[in-house]
Amino acid sequence: MKLPAALALLLAAASCAAPAKAPAVFGPTNAEKAPAGAACYASVIELKPESEAKYRELHAAVWPEVLAAIKKANISDYRIYRAELGGKAYLFSTFTYTGSDFKADMDSIGKDPTTKLKWWPLTDACQTRLPGTPEGQQWTGIEQLMRIP
Amino acid sequence: MKLPAALALLLAAASCAAPAKAPAVFGPTNAEKAPAGAACYASVIELKPESEAKYRELHAAVWPEVLAAIKKANISDYRIYRAELGGKAYLFSTFTYTGSDFKADMDSIGKDPTTKLKWWPLTDACQTRLPGTPEGQQWTGIEQLMRIP
Repeated sequence: MKLPAALALLLAAASCAAPAKAPAVFGPTNAEKAPAGAACYASVIELKPESEAKYRELHAAVWPEVLAAIKKANISDYRIYRAELGGKAYLFSTFTYTGSDFKADMDSIGKDPTTKLKWWPLTDACQTRLPGTPEGQQWTGIEQLMRIP
Repeated sequence: MKLPAALALLLAAASCAAPAKAPAVFGPTNAEKAPAGAACYASVIELKPESEAKYRELHAAVWPEVLAAIKKANISDYRIYRAELGGKAYLFSTFTYTGSDFKADMDSIGKDPTTKLKWWPLTDACQTRLPGTPEGQQWTGIEQLMRIP
């Protein structure tokens, strides 16, 4: 069974200012800080074909409680894209983290009852975790090869 | 045959401020402008396994002339990520465009001799265009489903 509370811990981070050396290992240890204190996180997951309409509906109007929890956790410029590759649909996500305690901030999202008990169960059900994703992780971190400021 | 000069025209754009309604149609017509005048572009392409080392080498130290052409074209926060999906490696790219004439700016990159005659031939050779990508296009635009500022 998936652990929605662990969702936010599962994203690979790279400095917003320079390519990451360490690739798809997850969590704050990967968050090389840019001069301005911002770190970019990027990740992917598969989107279930039968859940695409629901996923789009949810993300066309993210709930206020979820937005508030994300903002409080020092996350900004949070984008989700959809790509069709090899006959499957995938979600590609990026966000910027500007806080100073990544784990504490991510934990704070997992403690938001709306996000944990209502939003994540709905969104997780739309996704298929990628093979090889560590137990307890939802999205799979991806490596940043280049960034031009 | 691929047309490197068309590379920069082939990316789907979405407003940095709101989800794009129009998905994988390419070019400036898709660039809904955010209040601040910024538009986000995102795209994907396959990375050839045998070219991965070369691609990494090139993007670990992008040439000064290429950087200058990109900056002059009002492109910033240009990132390339690598994801392994279904046994293949893909490149995900995002950038922000802050100019007022997308086509002219993209054309200006194609007129930079170093980019057109040296850089693009090298990078294009590392990539496999996705099935269904329109003739003359290199990268394939992807749809933005969500953005939280």
